[in-house]
Amino acid sequence: MNSFAFHNPTKIIFGEGTVSRLGKEASAYGSKALLVYGGGSIKRTGLHDKVLAQLQEHGIEVFELPGIEPNPRLSTVRKGIDICRENDIPFVLAVGGGSVLDASKAIALGVPYEGSVWDFYEHKATAKAALPLGTVLTLSATGSEMNSASVITNWEERRKLGYLSPLAFPRFSILDPTLTYTVPRDQTAYGAVDMMTHVFEQYFNHTKDTPLQERLCESILKTIVENAPVAQENPNDYAARANLMLCGTYALNGGMISVGMDQDWASHDIEHELSAVYDIAHGAGLSIVYPNWMKYVYRERLDRFAQFAVRVWDIDPSGKTEEELALAGIQATRDFFRSLGAPSTLTEVGIGEDRIEEMAAKSVSFGPLGHFKKLGQEDVAAIYRLSL
Amino acid sequence: MNSFAFHNPTKIIFGEGTVSRLGKEASAYGSKALLVYGGGSIKRTGLHDKVLAQLQEHGIEVFELPGIEPNPRLSTVRKGIDICRENDIPFVLAVGGGSVLDASKAIALGVPYEGSVWDFYEHKATAKAALPLGTVLTLSATGSEMNSASVITNWEERRKLGYLSPLAFPRFSILDPTLTYTVPRDQTAYGAVDMMTHVFEQYFNHTKDTPLQERLCESILKTIVENAPVAQENPNDYAARANLMLCGTYALNGGMISVGMDQDWASHDIEHELSAVYDIAHGAGLSIVYPNWMKYVYRERLDRFAQFAVRVWDIDPSGKTEEELALAGIQATRDFFRSLGAPSTLTEVGIGEDRIEEMAAKSVSFGPLGHFKKLGQEDVAAIYRLSL
Repeated sequence: MNSFAFHNPTKIIFGEGTVSRLGKEASAYGSKALLVYGGGSIKRTGLHDKVLAQLQEHGIEVFELPGIEPNPRLSTVRKGIDICRENDIPFVLAVGGGSVLDASKAIALGVPYEGSVWDFYEHKATAKAALPLGTVLTLSATGSEMNSASVITNWEERRKLGYLSPLAFPRFSILDPTLTYTVPRDQTAYGAVDMMTHVFEQYFNHTKDTPLQERLCESILKTIVENAPVAQENPNDYAARANLMLCGTYALNGGMISVGMDQDWASHDIEHELSAVYDIAHGAGLSIVYPNWMKYVYRERLDRFAQFAVRVWDIDPSGKTEEELALAGIQATRDFFRSLGAPSTLTEVGIGEDRIEEMAAKSVSFGPLGHFKKLGQEDVAAIYRLSL
Repeated sequence: MNSFAFHNPTKIIFGEGTVSRLGKEASAYGSKALLVYGGGSIKRTGLHDKVLAQLQEHGIEVFELPGIEPNPRLSTVRKGIDICRENDIPFVLAVGGGSVLDASKAIALGVPYEGSVWDFYEHKATAKAALPLGTVLTLSATGSEMNSASVITNWEERRKLGYLSPLAFPRFSILDPTLTYTVPRDQTAYGAVDMMTHVFEQYFNHTKDTPLQERLCESILKTIVENAPVAQENPNDYAARANLMLCGTYALNGGMISVGMDQDWASHDIEHELSAVYDIAHGAGLSIVYPNWMKYVYRERLDRFAQFAVRVWDIDPSGKTEEELALAGIQATRDFFRSLGAPSTLTEVGIGEDRIEEMAAKSVSFGPLGHFKKLGQEDVAAIYRLSL
C-alpha cells in the first residue's frame, strides 16, 4: 500500500424527497445562486419548479444558466462565469448529471480567477479559490457529486481535458434516486459503464498489499452488475436506482475505495479524444474502449485480471490458467456492456479509422498515458484499431 | 435502503513516516496545544520526542496531559478541560489509541461548555462548540480517528457512556502503521476484535436492499481475518499492520460502509457495563459478549447470518440449512477470536455471575438496547449468563 492523504468534505444527503432539504442547505452560502442545468429535462419532470420553490422559500435570488451540453463546453462555462461576475453571485447550484456538475465546477473555479479557466485544464495554473458549489444529481454515473474532478471540452480546439482541485468538492450533494426514474434505457447503460470503468481505473494497478481496496472495488462492480439490468427493466425500481446511485458516488469520491493504490486513467483519456472529436456519449465511448484497453494490457498483471474474473464475474477457476481466466473476465465485461445495449465497436457508432492517428497523437500531448502500462501514441492507435 | 446524510470532514494522512506532517497540520490551529497521551509507551518508543519536535519546530507551545486510562475516565477528562481553560489552549492533540482519542474528544467538547461535559454523555445537553482536535494513532482498533464518537467512563458512578457529535470529528488524523509495530499480541487481538464488532454492529440489521453496504462490511471483515494473525506472528509486517489500520478506520468512520442501514450497538452497551464494573479491556469484553449476542439473536435474520458464514468465513453452503450456516458462522467467529488469544468466557477473565443483574439493570437505564432485536433487562442478563 502506498502512503496517501484522503479528505472528502462533501456532505451527502441521500433518499427519496431529499430535494426538500435544498433550500436550507443552499441558504448557508448567500442570497443569490447561479442555477446550472442541461437540456430542459428538469423542466419536463417538474424538478426545476421544485428547485426554484426551495430557493425562493429561503430568500435566494436565482440566476439561470440552462443548456449545458452532454460534453460540457468551455464557451458555456465562460457564460456562467460572466453571469456570476456581473451579478455578484456567491454560490453555484448544479442540477443534473455529470456534465452539468462538471461545468458548474469549472464556473465555480473560474469566477475568482483572473485568467482563463482553461488554464487549469491545460495545467498552466492552479486554482487558489472557488465559489461554493451544491448539487442535485439526476443521473447515476459520474461521481462528480462527491469528488473534486471536472472534465471540460474546448470545442474550438477539439480538446477535452480534466482538472482536479480540492476547492471543487461540492459542499453538499442531494442524491434522490427517484430523480433517476426518467433516465432512459441507454443513458442508464452508459451510467453503469461509466461507474464501472471508474472502478477499473483504480482496480488495475501494480500496487502490492491492498486487499481491502481490491474488495471495495469488487463490491461496487458486483452491485452494479446486479442492479443495472434491474433498473433498465423497471426504471421505477427504487432499490435498483438507489443502489446504482450509491455505487456511482462511491466509485469515484476522491479515491475512498482506492486509497494507497496507483490509478491508471489511460482509457478515460483515450475516450476523451473520441468524444471531443465525435461528440459521442462518454459512457458509449468507454463501453467501446475499455474492453480493448483490457485486452491490450492484461498481461501486465495476469493475477489481478484472473481475480477480477473470479470475484466479479463468478467465473469458475477450476482447470483454467490465469490467462484463460483473465480473458474470460474481459469477455464477460464486454458481454455485460453489450447486454445493457452499450456499443462494443467504433463501427457501430459510425466512427471509422480516418482520424485514429490524429486522436492518438493528441491524446499523448501531455506525455504517455496511464500507469498500469504506459501508453505512447502507437499504443493508443492500436487500442483505437482494436476498437473498430 | 434508508434515507441518510453522510458527512465526514476528517483528513487522513496515512503511511510510514507521516508524523513528519504533524507540525504543519497542527500549526493551522494556533500556537498552543494540549498533548494528550496514555501510559507512557509513546515515551519508550520515541514517538513522544518526535511529536514534541514537530510541534516545537512549528512554534507551538505544548501542555501535556499524560496518563489517560484504558477506559478513559471523566475525572481525567476534567483535568484536560481545566488545563485548556487555564492556559487558553485552542487545540487538542491526541497521541495514542482509542482511549486517548476519546478522552481528547471529550476535552475538546468540554472546554467551551459551561456545564459538566458528562451532560453530553447522559444525553442532557448537546454540544454547540468544540476545540479543534488532531490525532496520531498508535493502535488499530477504534475508528475514533475518523469518527465523531467517544466513550467515557464515570468511575465514581461505574458508568461508561458514549456520545456522538459532528463537532468531534478530528480535523486530521495521522495514521502511520509502523507506530503499531510495538502493539503486543493481546492488544493486537483486542484491536482486531474491536474493529470486527464495529462492522457487526452495522451489518446485522433488518434494512432491505443494501447489497453494496453488505459487501463493504464483508470486505473489511475478510481483510481483518486475513491480516490479524499475520500481524501477531510478525509484528513488524508493514502490509498487515497497514491493512489492519485501514480496516479499523473504515470500519467506523461515520457510517461510510453502512449508509442507509439500521445499526444495532446493543453488544457494545452490554460490554460497556462489563468494563465499567470490572475495568477489563474493551476488546476482551467484546470477544466474550459478541458471539453470545449472535447466538441469542441470529434467528431474527437467518439469511443475513447465513450470508455472513458463506461470504466471510467461506463456509460451503451445499447441503446446509440457513440455520446450520448461521450457527457455523457464529462458531467460526468465536473460534477466530479464540485463535487470536482473545477470551471466550467471563470465567476466563475472572468474572462470575454475582453482578449480572446489576449490570443488566444499568445497561437498559436509557431504555431497551439495540435495533436488530430489542433487548430488555432479562435479555441482557441472559446474554451475560450465556457468556459465563
